[in-house]
Amino acid sequence: MADAPNPIRDTDDAARTQARGLIGAARFGALGVTDPETGAPMVTRIAVVPGPDGAPLTLISDLSGHSAALAANPACSLLLGEPGPRGDPLTHPRITLQCIAQPTDKTTLREHYLTLYPKAQLYYDFADFRMMRLQASHALLNGGFGKAFLLTSDDLVAPG
Amino acid sequence: MADAPNPIRDTDDAARTQARGLIGAARFGALGVTDPETGAPMVTRIAVVPGPDGAPLTLISDLSGHSAALAANPACSLLLGEPGPRGDPLTHPRITLQCIAQPTDKTTLREHYLTLYPKAQLYYDFADFRMMRLQASHALLNGGFGKAFLLTSDDLVAPG
Repeated sequence: MADAPNPIRDTDDAARTQARGLIGAARFGALGVTDPETGAPMVTRIAVVPGPDGAPLTLISDLSGHSAALAANPACSLLLGEPGPRGDPLTHPRITLQCIAQPTDKTTLREHYLTLYPKAQLYYDFADFRMMRLQASHALLNGGFGKAFLLTSDDLVAPG
Repeated sequence: MADAPNPIRDTDDAARTQARGLIGAARFGALGVTDPETGAPMVTRIAVVPGPDGAPLTLISDLSGHSAALAANPACSLLLGEPGPRGDPLTHPRITLQCIAQPTDKTTLREHYLTLYPKAQLYYDFADFRMMRLQASHALLNGGFGKAFLLTSDDLVAPG
């Protein structure tokens, strides 16, 4: 593999802006966790909203397989950026965040979350639902065929 | 957790039909692999088509992170079933397949794959692209909020 071309481009401001745009716009994503019974990856759909600090938040049920998996091992991966009905899905921009899932206070985030995800009013207060913050250590942005960027956690935060 | 309700329903023919329908209709999905460098899950978008035997096929590049990960550990997970623009994405049916990725012959599958995924003509014959068959051992079907089913590999195959 020493002679394989490096498919990763140098990160620029356009890539950072695109990455933050994908995270901010996403209302669902594909969460990868490690199945504690088998050690295999397991991917499920979750709801997400960007948190007040930009890190994704998700409200998940204790009854779900991914909740049990995150309790055993908080390392996870989140794919955001959904193709539309036209074009090759592989040319549609998406981002993979490599994260640690951190339990966070559901009560104080109620208005923030429900403003961005009103349909969660139906189950937000269920006792088995808890809020997790997904803290990314790094990310792979794929801006379309052949346009890949490796981003740091700093790249994902808007300049203050 | 001993008192938690079991959210898994008994598998019936409607669930089996829905599962096979989701696999047959999908042209992309979220693939979860294990990052060989960190051991963490990693989720990326891949193109998929149903193979002649019903098992998902995907054409992936050796340059991609998921190819390297599958070479190191073929255990993977595939989420299929994409929400439309309306409604709560969590109520949209989707299925998680727990799979082993098996390299398979690209040449003999050319017409089958390109009939179902014509846009891949642009890169099908690139030397770095290879065909993988995803053999599911079991699957979690989520037919909507509170409608979960655990399916066997036999449930995913249409009666002959």
